[in-house]
Amino acid sequence: MNRVYNFSAGPSMLPLPVLEQAQKELVCYGDTGMSVMEMSHRSKAFDDIIKQAEADIRDLMNIPDNYKVLFLQGGGNTQFAMVPLNLYKKGKADYVQTGQWAKKAAQEAKKWGDVHIVASSEDKVYSYIPKLDKSMFDPEADYFHITYNNTIYGTRYTKIPDTGNVPLVGDLSSCIMSEVIDVTKFGLIYAGAQKNIGPAGVTVVIIREDLLGNAKPECPTMLDYKIHADKDSLFNTPPCYAIYVAGLVFKWLKQMGGVAEMQKVNEEKAGILYDFLDNSSLFKGTVVPEDRSLMNVPFVTGDDDLNAKFIKEATAAGLVNLKGHRTVGGMRASIYNAMPVEGVKTLVEFMKKFETENK
Amino acid sequence: MNRVYNFSAGPSMLPLPVLEQAQKELVCYGDTGMSVMEMSHRSKAFDDIIKQAEADIRDLMNIPDNYKVLFLQGGGNTQFAMVPLNLYKKGKADYVQTGQWAKKAAQEAKKWGDVHIVASSEDKVYSYIPKLDKSMFDPEADYFHITYNNTIYGTRYTKIPDTGNVPLVGDLSSCIMSEVIDVTKFGLIYAGAQKNIGPAGVTVVIIREDLLGNAKPECPTMLDYKIHADKDSLFNTPPCYAIYVAGLVFKWLKQMGGVAEMQKVNEEKAGILYDFLDNSSLFKGTVVPEDRSLMNVPFVTGDDDLNAKFIKEATAAGLVNLKGHRTVGGMRASIYNAMPVEGVKTLVEFMKKFETENK
Repeated sequence: MNRVYNFSAGPSMLPLPVLEQAQKELVCYGDTGMSVMEMSHRSKAFDDIIKQAEADIRDLMNIPDNYKVLFLQGGGNTQFAMVPLNLYKKGKADYVQTGQWAKKAAQEAKKWGDVHIVASSEDKVYSYIPKLDKSMFDPEADYFHITYNNTIYGTRYTKIPDTGNVPLVGDLSSCIMSEVIDVTKFGLIYAGAQKNIGPAGVTVVIIREDLLGNAKPECPTMLDYKIHADKDSLFNTPPCYAIYVAGLVFKWLKQMGGVAEMQKVNEEKAGILYDFLDNSSLFKGTVVPEDRSLMNVPFVTGDDDLNAKFIKEATAAGLVNLKGHRTVGGMRASIYNAMPVEGVKTLVEFMKKFETENK
Repeated sequence: MNRVYNFSAGPSMLPLPVLEQAQKELVCYGDTGMSVMEMSHRSKAFDDIIKQAEADIRDLMNIPDNYKVLFLQGGGNTQFAMVPLNLYKKGKADYVQTGQWAKKAAQEAKKWGDVHIVASSEDKVYSYIPKLDKSMFDPEADYFHITYNNTIYGTRYTKIPDTGNVPLVGDLSSCIMSEVIDVTKFGLIYAGAQKNIGPAGVTVVIIREDLLGNAKPECPTMLDYKIHADKDSLFNTPPCYAIYVAGLVFKWLKQMGGVAEMQKVNEEKAGILYDFLDNSSLFKGTVVPEDRSLMNVPFVTGDDDLNAKFIKEATAAGLVNLKGHRTVGGMRASIYNAMPVEGVKTLVEFMKKFETENK
């Protein structure tokens, strides 16, 4: 077995113990005589799996009882529609535009209401988080939407905006459970699984109960949060296997000491990489220091040919998926929870060597 | 390893060689150094997987070039909304009501237009397929919707209705690739994977190209077929692992000789079970003989206590998930492609023994 260090932005690395456990019980799960993939979603065995997954994520994120946890399908893109279809009352919302995903979310919301872009960092290729001030917010908005960690650009909020009585909606796809977050500051949190939770195909939604039950009449049944909340995510056949693997990831996170411990490891990993970038004569980060993501670290050499050479040689050395998004160029190392410290150290050693060889 | 015979209506049994293959390469796929669950959906390795899956399903179902094959999320319930949101032009559609799922599909379509129930078999607990006659159809309808195989009630169409110029839409969730179907008779076919295709979490849509591009303005982007067709199912992160397992099932089907060969096996399996039911003094089928499903076989003893006893003893004997749907009662054996002939023979032997013991 020749595992690589996979710096993919998503789908991305999973913890090896999780994969090994999934492998072990793939054909027969416990004493059921079948694979989790073959189980009825109404069976006792699967009910135990989904209930345990929910209990564990509640525990890991300290989710209060007045929030529902849903396991849905369709990823962030589906949430871009579900949020306005369920939360619009007056039909107006505030969005902060901190990248391509934030922009797409806002564009989708325009289909059913008025979207106000509170602030944008598009002027500098989204390399910073705009300073937010309560005077910029509409106190009459139905909700306020932020993209907490911006996968493509490598920025993150370090402070949750205080939106008063306006429910805060956060896309946490690329940072959920990577650092301690106060769930009570949000009305709704959503996250596609394929970065910090599990395989692609399941989306976690954490929604305050008072936000349920207001879906627009034209909202497709499957896009109504209340439909899923009332049936504990079993209104229809859920993506059972993806939920099962997510559940294994939650168990692994608990074994690792939970989110606070994970945050320390993530700060260590990001620290190693940013320290190197800040002192390198060849590589440099693209994000203002105060808004740097713990999860996605874009960097460049300033020379496209050298970037290409670096990516090629890194791949050959088992450090894969380091190519940056086309809108930023250069490189990006995504170092989610499942990336071990050793992976980041190996990357930095490789970068040092490359720097020496290419001065 | 103590595998059971799993008669679940869905999610349901998968071919053992598929599970074993998935198990073998779960931690490391080929020479990629990672699990399929960890692969970027933009990677060469995953591109090969999804392209091969598409090529194989095209081959297996003999899908013409003017049809797109899409791998989506959200199951049949999401299709209930996508069909009207994409196919309504005048805003009227014909539906045949052959069960609970057909009814739900029609109800969802009412959100955006006028639905005409052409015929219904609700009067006899959906135990037959209504006789259809062209004079019953609206030649001005935007489409005509049928549920080709009715999972709960165990009925199936044996003839595809001729709807003239009105596009025929078929929910083939519980029979896709179990028998040879002429795709050209349909404008659109959809199927949740969790019965005959693979694990829950991926939905196959086969759509004639002229039906693309007419989504209503309020249609969420993720529910617009054209968005997905234009990007070959990679508009967003697809449910990669479920697509990979579906691809393994397609390869297995080809090894088994394709859909025509599978149909022979399915006819043999259903024949064994229906023959027994027709001659049993204890058990009887609930569906009129001419509309019997090859996939889902409901049966009863006429005594609830005896039904319960049968299910309990069958479970203990490794014949599981035989409980019928609450609206029909009794038992149901779902015998999809992955159920071997041996499984059906074992079930019938068990039923014979139970009959003798409980006369």
